[in-house]
Amino acid sequence: MQRQLQEEKVFKDPVHHSVYVHDMTIWKLINTPEFQRLRRIRQLGTTYLTFHGAEHSRFSHSLGVYEITRKIINQFERNGYKDWPQEEKLVSLCASLLHDVGHGPFSHAIEHVFQTDHEKWTCDIVLGDTSINRVLREAGEEFPDKVASVIRKTYDKPIVVSLVSSQMDADRMDYLLRDAYFTGVNYGSFDLDRLLRVMRPHKDAIVVKESGMHAVEAYLMARYQMYWQVYFHPVTRSSDMLLRQIFRRAGELYQSGYRFAFLLPQLAQLFERKMTVDAYLSLDDSIVQTAFNQWIRESDELLSDLCRRFLHRQLYKYITVESIDEAFLNGLREEWLAIGLNPEYHLEVDTPIDLPYDVYKPGTAPDAKDKPPILILDEKDRVSEISARSDIIKSIAGLHQGKYAIYYPEEELRERASRLKPSTRELFGL
Amino acid sequence: MQRQLQEEKVFKDPVHHSVYVHDMTIWKLINTPEFQRLRRIRQLGTTYLTFHGAEHSRFSHSLGVYEITRKIINQFERNGYKDWPQEEKLVSLCASLLHDVGHGPFSHAIEHVFQTDHEKWTCDIVLGDTSINRVLREAGEEFPDKVASVIRKTYDKPIVVSLVSSQMDADRMDYLLRDAYFTGVNYGSFDLDRLLRVMRPHKDAIVVKESGMHAVEAYLMARYQMYWQVYFHPVTRSSDMLLRQIFRRAGELYQSGYRFAFLLPQLAQLFERKMTVDAYLSLDDSIVQTAFNQWIRESDELLSDLCRRFLHRQLYKYITVESIDEAFLNGLREEWLAIGLNPEYHLEVDTPIDLPYDVYKPGTAPDAKDKPPILILDEKDRVSEISARSDIIKSIAGLHQGKYAIYYPEEELRERASRLKPSTRELFGL
Amino acid sequence: MQRQLQEEKVFKDPVHHSVYVHDMTIWKLINTPEFQRLRRIRQLGTTYLTFHGAEHSRFSHSLGVYEITRKIINQFERNGYKDWPQEEKLVSLCASLLHDVGHGPFSHAIEHVFQTDHEKWTCDIVLGDTSINRVLREAGEEFPDKVASVIRKTYDKPIVVSLVSSQMDADRMDYLLRDAYFTGVNYGSFDLDRLLRVMRPHKDAIVVKESGMHAVEAYLMARYQMYWQVYFHPVTRSSDMLLRQIFRRAGELYQSGYRFAFLLPQLAQLFERKMTVDAYLSLDDSIVQTAFNQWIRESDELLSDLCRRFLHRQLYKYITVESIDEAFLNGLREEWLAIGLNPEYHLEVDTPIDLPYDVYKPGTAPDAKDKPPILILDEKDRVSEISARSDIIKSIAGLHQGKYAIYYPEEELRERASRLKPSTRELFGL
Amino acid sequence: MQRQLQEEKVFKDPVHHSVYVHDMTIWKLINTPEFQRLRRIRQLGTTYLTFHGAEHSRFSHSLGVYEITRKIINQFERNGYKDWPQEEKLVSLCASLLHDVGHGPFSHAIEHVFQTDHEKWTCDIVLGDTSINRVLREAGEEFPDKVASVIRKTYDKPIVVSLVSSQMDADRMDYLLRDAYFTGVNYGSFDLDRLLRVMRPHKDAIVVKESGMHAVEAYLMARYQMYWQVYFHPVTRSSDMLLRQIFRRAGELYQSGYRFAFLLPQLAQLFERKMTVDAYLSLDDSIVQTAFNQWIRESDELLSDLCRRFLHRQLYKYITVESIDEAFLNGLREEWLAIGLNPEYHLEVDTPIDLPYDVYKPGTAPDAKDKPPILILDEKDRVSEISARSDIIKSIAGLHQGKYAIYYPEEELRERASRLKPSTRELFGL
Repeated sequence: MQRQLQEEKVFKDPVHHSVYVHDMTIWKLINTPEFQRLRRIRQLGTTYLTFHGAEHSRFSHSLGVYEITRKIINQFERNGYKDWPQEEKLVSLCASLLHDVGHGPFSHAIEHVFQTDHEKWTCDIVLGDTSINRVLREAGEEFPDKVASVIRKTYDKPIVVSLVSSQMDADRMDYLLRDAYFTGVNYGSFDLDRLLRVMRPHKDAIVVKESGMHAVEAYLMARYQMYWQVYFHPVTRSSDMLLRQIFRRAGELYQSGYRFAFLLPQLAQLFERKMTVDAYLSLDDSIVQTAFNQWIRESDELLSDLCRRFLHRQLYKYITVESIDEAFLNGLREEWLAIGLNPEYHLEVDTPIDLPYDVYKPGTAPDAKDKPPILILDEKDRVSEISARSDIIKSIAGLHQGKYAIYYPEEELRERASRLKPSTRELFGL
Repeated sequence: MQRQLQEEKVFKDPVHHSVYVHDMTIWKLINTPEFQRLRRIRQLGTTYLTFHGAEHSRFSHSLGVYEITRKIINQFERNGYKDWPQEEKLVSLCASLLHDVGHGPFSHAIEHVFQTDHEKWTCDIVLGDTSINRVLREAGEEFPDKVASVIRKTYDKPIVVSLVSSQMDADRMDYLLRDAYFTGVNYGSFDLDRLLRVMRPHKDAIVVKESGMHAVEAYLMARYQMYWQVYFHPVTRSSDMLLRQIFRRAGELYQSGYRFAFLLPQLAQLFERKMTVDAYLSLDDSIVQTAFNQWIRESDELLSDLCRRFLHRQLYKYITVESIDEAFLNGLREEWLAIGLNPEYHLEVDTPIDLPYDVYKPGTAPDAKDKPPILILDEKDRVSEISARSDIIKSIAGLHQGKYAIYYPEEELRERASRLKPSTRELFGL
Repeated sequence: MQRQLQEEKVFKDPVHHSVYVHDMTIWKLINTPEFQRLRRIRQLGTTYLTFHGAEHSRFSHSLGVYEITRKIINQFERNGYKDWPQEEKLVSLCASLLHDVGHGPFSHAIEHVFQTDHEKWTCDIVLGDTSINRVLREAGEEFPDKVASVIRKTYDKPIVVSLVSSQMDADRMDYLLRDAYFTGVNYGSFDLDRLLRVMRPHKDAIVVKESGMHAVEAYLMARYQMYWQVYFHPVTRSSDMLLRQIFRRAGELYQSGYRFAFLLPQLAQLFERKMTVDAYLSLDDSIVQTAFNQWIRESDELLSDLCRRFLHRQLYKYITVESIDEAFLNGLREEWLAIGLNPEYHLEVDTPIDLPYDVYKPGTAPDAKDKPPILILDEKDRVSEISARSDIIKSIAGLHQGKYAIYYPEEELRERASRLKPSTRELFGL
Repeated sequence: MQRQLQEEKVFKDPVHHSVYVHDMTIWKLINTPEFQRLRRIRQLGTTYLTFHGAEHSRFSHSLGVYEITRKIINQFERNGYKDWPQEEKLVSLCASLLHDVGHGPFSHAIEHVFQTDHEKWTCDIVLGDTSINRVLREAGEEFPDKVASVIRKTYDKPIVVSLVSSQMDADRMDYLLRDAYFTGVNYGSFDLDRLLRVMRPHKDAIVVKESGMHAVEAYLMARYQMYWQVYFHPVTRSSDMLLRQIFRRAGELYQSGYRFAFLLPQLAQLFERKMTVDAYLSLDDSIVQTAFNQWIRESDELLSDLCRRFLHRQLYKYITVESIDEAFLNGLREEWLAIGLNPEYHLEVDTPIDLPYDVYKPGTAPDAKDKPPILILDEKDRVSEISARSDIIKSIAGLHQGKYAIYYPEEELRERASRLKPSTRELFGL
């Protein structure tokens, strides 16, 4: 059941110029409190501390993913490709619009510290007692389940899943273009129109026709650049780390019975790891920032200092080293202790292996988390995985690079530099 | 005293590509907690509820104003124009960087309800016991006073004031371009490089050489478009109105001794109109949004409903009428009362005369608030006010247009429609 | 009869990103020799001598006009507006594609000197023994006549004519955007998507719904800027004048029996004003430039000098004056004669009244040449002419401004300056 | 001797926004007839037949190369890098402006057929009896020789040569951005400002500091995309081939004593391979196109047909094959002969090995033609060649790919298809 709006609705969007809504269901979903909440959650977490333009929200990204999905499906319908199951349009659009609705504030840090999972929250919101669920049920009692299973990647039409979740899905296409636009870098740009034009439904998959291979290369190169110049920027890594430290410290204090001068019930639930959907839905970037703002005045000096650092953007500095081992690190930790620094908080290491690096992965591992690879369809209807065809993609695929970074509070270390070993002083340029 | 950084610092900026910092003072100012706070205050208040891209902060705008000022001065220096007082460079750059540092969250609404004044706060921050004041004093004991007097427009070099505050100042140039970029509209665009190239210092003023008159026209046309298509957009007016209602209601409740379930001390100070600089500096958009988020659960139904509307973006609807008079309005108010709506909150009128319309004002009123007009310098060194030269600017200047808008909660009115007069029903399309 | 291509064809276009072709007729028309000839005729004549980027051809513009027309019609069809006569799609597309096919090289200058008329040539090509005619006839014996009558503005469906020829037609929309793109100015930009979205078929006309009025204002402001900053740029006026002088001189020589060392038969036909369609179709910018290139070596010194000036871009200089009268001009002519300059060629005046100024004309004069005005449709289905609604458009409409310009060969005048009257010397800055 | 203009001159440029001229020598060079001639020579030869926007000239590219060189040198001067020899500014700017002044019309095709060499012509123009030479000599008797030796890459300051000619020189940076802009593709885009900011003079070379490595990768990826999507586009290869065939045929006819109905003396000199600088300077795209236009009426049917094909854009079609050998080709040639086609003209093969592929070459071969590689400077002042540092560049470097293409006149082959071998028919899809 797909009801059309009497008149199309248009959102002005800086990336796609316009986002068009024709279906009543989509329109109603956008206007639910749960979806509007995404306006209060930044798309790129702490990246705005590195690139000041990166203040955009998950709301605009979610509209963008919807719009790209809509364009892909329209192209399929306009050309009458028979491998596209037309009846799957609405479920595809809903899943693409809602795929991020379970994100919380700064979710990478929170998920890391408190072991939550935004995909699970998304499904809970889609299936729970929410406005979103009510809107979806208007399209059929089973409809929320269908949307949730697309998001869980268990839907029985793999082609629908791959629209929203593959190595060249609507999600990635939108965030690359959007993050490039708002940060102001221009490496993340590629020819979206062209890419959409060379996509074809083929059996259970979405493939790219051979003449579009260079367009895919351009997309992956944009992705490569965004990884190294934006997503893995060491200043962003440093602010993410600080954020995790704040949550870690606050959680420890809570567990130890510390009495917070300021603590909202939602955060208490988070620390207790017993969170209702309702409480989760009231979390947003504002609550986190307000907590940090108030915690500057907490009696726990470490928590206070970390919050002050975050809000005033006085981040840890870093040095990079080619390699690192446990013995070396233990040595540093002992030195830190000896000079009165806290090695649990004043020394963090970022290893290249921690980077969630997935510019492109050729294989489809049995692991359900792995996203389908990009497939090329040649003129004789043969399908092959793209890195078997493109030397440049083969060279990007699975590439691991980067150095180790050691983060530390510069001023505190500098004050105590005279008590460090000469080799340590040299390493940290003191 | 102007110390150079050893190596220039560069901020990636989506509007100006790069923002360059060469002076130690500027670098230190940017890194003060007071300036970093601007990251947590949106440039366009509630406009993000109309244009979802408008999520940018006063931080990026302030850097942009600084950058444009820097470019203007560089052009003056490169060409060796003798009417530019070279020793005023640092004070000009500092004033342009700091001119908005006294803005609070959603300041148009807060200033309206609580009679605060961001310009006064800016001066208090520049002159008070703050990190900004300490950095400025490194450049001379009198330096903070100089910066403050530029911001107050009382500095004894009018040419410096006009860089930061005139009808074609760095502030306006940046916000037009920036707001156009982030909303995604392209009407606000004009040729900044060209405009900067035709500016000349001339005696105490900055003028535009005659051959650049069409470039100024383009700038004012962009301004005209941004006013009508973005700044005065009725949906933004509607969300601003809602925001003012929330503050008004919360203030009334506070005055009447209502016990808030959630109230941060900063907001209490605001309601009491006794705010310290320190408390003011801890205000930001997050605190306001967090308060609204918690107030949804307040026992005062009106406050709760207004906050819910704001956060869930369930704004008042509006109709437009060509004219309006008090008798008509009183009639509506009575009807509202009769059907159980609150005319103080459920009926608001926006008159064109309320629009802070200043695309361009030719005269320089004695009122110190009025900004200097745009002057054209002809080949014979005669200066004239631009609307005397350009028919199109004459037609824009002082133009008032627009209709009256009546805002109301649609659902509530619709439910009670049967009890309205037929003419009212027709007017509201019920 | 409208046959679809099996697979859509796409042209990469810098202005519209892509130009889509679905109809076999359009595809075949693009591939005719007559249409391909447009690749060899610059869109903006001599403007490339002022803005070096303006080297684009009428070919790309013609594709652009077609694409905009296609988008407008698609919008009408998608929304099912009943006032749009669906059967007129193909004739509209063909007329928009072909409307400029009768343009010759530098046609403004040639039409001025030899009294030809590109619109007449367009119809001759559409109706004559050409590939275009043959392709059109495949769609029906009467089809070429229909296309020609749209171009002549006599077609019995005025709504079709107004797509291709009105004050806000596809032609103007494309050339403003295209000329802005290639010259590199950004004043000519407006929001095409938005403009297309507010257009509606209404009875026999295309109107704009009221909420789009500011979008129309932005379009007309862009037009105003392009007129003053590009189309009427005095350097372009100067090179146009030189071009007309070359044709005038060559024509005079031909009439007087001068034996050209180099003269292609097409040009001889032009001078004799007896040109066949076939000969006309072999004219292009290359032939004109090659003639000029060879004529540098002609024995007629005036022709040789004019050609050298044009090819080497040694244009006449100009001064501007507020007003001018015949007596004054006659005085100058006598002085020119007295010092050995040729007042017929070495002195030209450009008066503002000569400017083909039509940013916007409110009225529909009985003169068939006048293009329909822009109409606004309000919510109550009333139609009004836009300048009655918009103060800013009223102020632009019919505005005449600009000064008089006097063009002359600077070096030649400077050499003879001592023999000029003191007042003349002062006027020309000698 | 470097004289400054009283007031800077500015060219509006779509790619760099503005091109600034401060030196009198540069200003005079731009205004020479030899430099103005570049306005009549397309930058991308026949590419406009594939991408209709690609109608830009070598004039605008030459200004762009100059502007980038100016920006690089300014950055070096502003930062006071001591390895940059400041006295080399003017020679660098002149060489960058003039490096392409020896290009003729469609020079890749003409150079291929008639063994001319644009670099040699550039030096002849710089050193010969030309306006350019006279302007250069005003800056010193030896100055033209210095400029010529930079262009020949024999200048004794290698750092100057590498500005104009290396694997990341001002020439390549400009043409990538410019060709992307005019074709309308966006794969050729990279962050020029950032790239310029990471360049450093280091001893005799220009190097890139390590933190800029990803910016260089982005530049080379843009280059890779432009090669495959624009420069090697098979339709462009096909039109280039046609152009070479026309010159080949016309040359053969000339050698064999054929009497041309139309033949300009410049072309006769070209066919005789005895061309003066003066005659060469009168060649331009117009003369070539005019010749083709007239040759359509030549009695030699082959020449006439080839010219008609070129002007009317009726190009040869192509098929691609993975590999090819001489026996196979000889077979095809015999078949062609047997069915009345001319294998010398109606069958051409494009092999990947013919592609002038140089996205990046790591080594510096002894061959003087080879351009210096890109060098990375690390924090410890060590220099290394970039492909030793970047896996992705290593994978691009020297990569050869692509298939073999066979070009042929489709209609002619189709008419005779019944007389071809079945395997040939299948291969050509007949």
